[in-house]
Amino acid sequence: MIEAKLPQASLLKKIIEAIKELVDEANFDFTESGIRLQAMDKSHVALSFLHLRDDGFREYRCDRSQTLGINLNSFSKILKCAANDDQVHIKATTDNAETLMVSFESSGKDRISEFNLKLMDIDIDSVDVPDMDYQATVTMSSQEFARIVRDLSSIGDAVTIDATKQGVKFSASGDDGNGSILLKHQKMIDDEGTSSTSVEITEPVSHSLALKYLANFAKAAPLADSVTINLIEEAPVMFEFKISDIGHIRFYLAPQIEEDNE
Amino acid sequence: MIEAKLPQASLLKKIIEAIKELVDEANFDFTESGIRLQAMDKSHVALSFLHLRDDGFREYRCDRSQTLGINLNSFSKILKCAANDDQVHIKATTDNAETLMVSFESSGKDRISEFNLKLMDIDIDSVDVPDMDYQATVTMSSQEFARIVRDLSSIGDAVTIDATKQGVKFSASGDDGNGSILLKHQKMIDDEGTSSTSVEITEPVSHSLALKYLANFAKAAPLADSVTINLIEEAPVMFEFKISDIGHIRFYLAPQIEEDNE
Amino acid sequence: MIEAKLPQASLLKKIIEAIKELVDEANFDFTESGIRLQAMDKSHVALSFLHLRDDGFREYRCDRSQTLGINLNSFSKILKCAANDDQVHIKATTDNAETLMVSFESSGKDRISEFNLKLMDIDIDSVDVPDMDYQATVTMSSQEFARIVRDLSSIGDAVTIDATKQGVKFSASGDDGNGSILLKHQKMIDDEGTSSTSVEITEPVSHSLALKYLANFAKAAPLADSVTINLIEEAPVMFEFKISDIGHIRFYLAPQIEEDNE
Repeated sequence: MIEAKLPQASLLKKIIEAIKELVDEANFDFTESGIRLQAMDKSHVALSFLHLRDDGFREYRCDRSQTLGINLNSFSKILKCAANDDQVHIKATTDNAETLMVSFESSGKDRISEFNLKLMDIDIDSVDVPDMDYQATVTMSSQEFARIVRDLSSIGDAVTIDATKQGVKFSASGDDGNGSILLKHQKMIDDEGTSSTSVEITEPVSHSLALKYLANFAKAAPLADSVTINLIEEAPVMFEFKISDIGHIRFYLAPQIEEDNE
Repeated sequence: MIEAKLPQASLLKKIIEAIKELVDEANFDFTESGIRLQAMDKSHVALSFLHLRDDGFREYRCDRSQTLGINLNSFSKILKCAANDDQVHIKATTDNAETLMVSFESSGKDRISEFNLKLMDIDIDSVDVPDMDYQATVTMSSQEFARIVRDLSSIGDAVTIDATKQGVKFSASGDDGNGSILLKHQKMIDDEGTSSTSVEITEPVSHSLALKYLANFAKAAPLADSVTINLIEEAPVMFEFKISDIGHIRFYLAPQIEEDNE
Repeated sequence: MIEAKLPQASLLKKIIEAIKELVDEANFDFTESGIRLQAMDKSHVALSFLHLRDDGFREYRCDRSQTLGINLNSFSKILKCAANDDQVHIKATTDNAETLMVSFESSGKDRISEFNLKLMDIDIDSVDVPDMDYQATVTMSSQEFARIVRDLSSIGDAVTIDATKQGVKFSASGDDGNGSILLKHQKMIDDEGTSSTSVEITEPVSHSLALKYLANFAKAAPLADSVTINLIEEAPVMFEFKISDIGHIRFYLAPQIEEDNE
């Protein structure tokens, strides 16, 4: 028996929207301590991690650890049937459940929706990602991140991220020309804490990344006011969106090998 | 001589938008008591009725009953040239008019638009729809109706509507799973009278309907706060949108024969 | 050395949006007194003129007159990377610069973007447009102009503009019918001065123009509250959008030869 309740369907909608561009089908691992998902994108370049802690749910129960294979597009279609402030309730009644029950209740309790989502067996090897002492950690507005990714995608295919004490610089070049956007490190965080950029650094790092993956990561921006970008030499870049009070989404992307094309 | 004036072009725009998805060309019957339209959709499955009473117009005159055949797309293009709060004036000057004059006047009277819409001969047999003592009448928010139709269309091709004393349930099933949305019968109508659902019933009824037609009916939602769904065994379902102070649009759709496919 | 600064990137964005539909590549002539552009559309029917005076910039410097050939789509992509209230700064450092430097600075100065736009050699003959004593000058809301062009485009391919003492009439005809929109001449200009129409006239003039070009001219509407339409017998019609405090965009379009097709 697995059961989880969230007070607002909008949160689950945003989470599924954030990962369904990268992954068609994924295994959700339910354990006593919460829900975890790990998924490689279709081209085996980007890795997504989702963690939702048990204490972040209104109610959470998992009698026995279980892995549920879910088609994210089908799940997304069902979630679209919920109003944003509907309470959402997911349930798998048996150990080898064939369907996930997903129900929504309107705040006035006058509208009750019940869906059965077919589950599937997905054969995926899990990847172990070691914890890293990153050389640079950039914290910036997630909206600003999404905007820069969108803007530079019209200039080129790749972005170079340079983290220095002064700030973080995003550069791209293409047939029409080239350009860069520098966000300066701010000592003082402003009251809202969202529009400022901070760069914590032990050593300057520079990595070049394919913008098409970053465009998918940016779909997680509605989940969090800020994103942290964690960089270290010769290892994938990690993007983390903290989901308030319940967990996080992390994306890992291997840097492109720099070619001398300037 | 036929003449009719409405204080707000937006009303006529919404009416034509509501039927033009179902019907390309239609006969408008002008009589002393108002305007009536009856049209079968292209696949001869759904039937639309429009009635606009003479007393709902600012001015209305019809010297002799007359039928005007109108291409609804052309009419819609002309109506798009009106601002929403323009006064609209339609006129056919002779008994066998070849064009319908459509004119708009801005509230400040500084902008006057005049259009001539070519009329056409449309050969359509009229269908007689008998009045029915329906077994169940569901009254619900038209916006909610439109939303449920849109949401369930992503799950399956058909919706089953079950009307019982407890409320009305809309169910659909497809490859990804299945689901249902239950709106509970509310004894008390809230102050606005729009968000509540009521089910008046002599006997529970259940019908399965093709969602693609309901998606077209839902285009009438902007015309009315609520829609009534009238059901009876072995007869088409009737959807009625009352147009405030002037008339109504009704859609009739034959239920699908239930197959044992569950 | 050429340098120009504008306090708001939004203005330059709107200017480039207004001309990039008509012209792919254009020469910008920088002189001591400001920037001029003259461009023929791809089909050699419509002529665009842009003039931005030196005193309209926050800072302006042009040591030696120079012509910079710019691909407007590339320029537009770079401008989209600016926030609307970013300060914009353009610079060409040498006499035969190969790139135009375009930089943006956010109001908080915490975000600095720098782009290099490749310049190109464009071989264009300049056309001399003589000053005219127009027979009729219509001043009207630019939004209203854009709306009429859009509305009549759904009726026909060409619009006839009739300027008389009573006002200005826009007419179109097509397969579905025909129509006209009359804006009456207002003696008193209202306080905002934007929604009124005035017609100054020495002689009534009527010209028929292809709507597809007017649809492109209407893209300049965001730059100015009003547009003036200047008409004279047997000469192109001139549409002028004044850009507040800095200059104007003018479009010239030759009338269609009237055919007896009514």
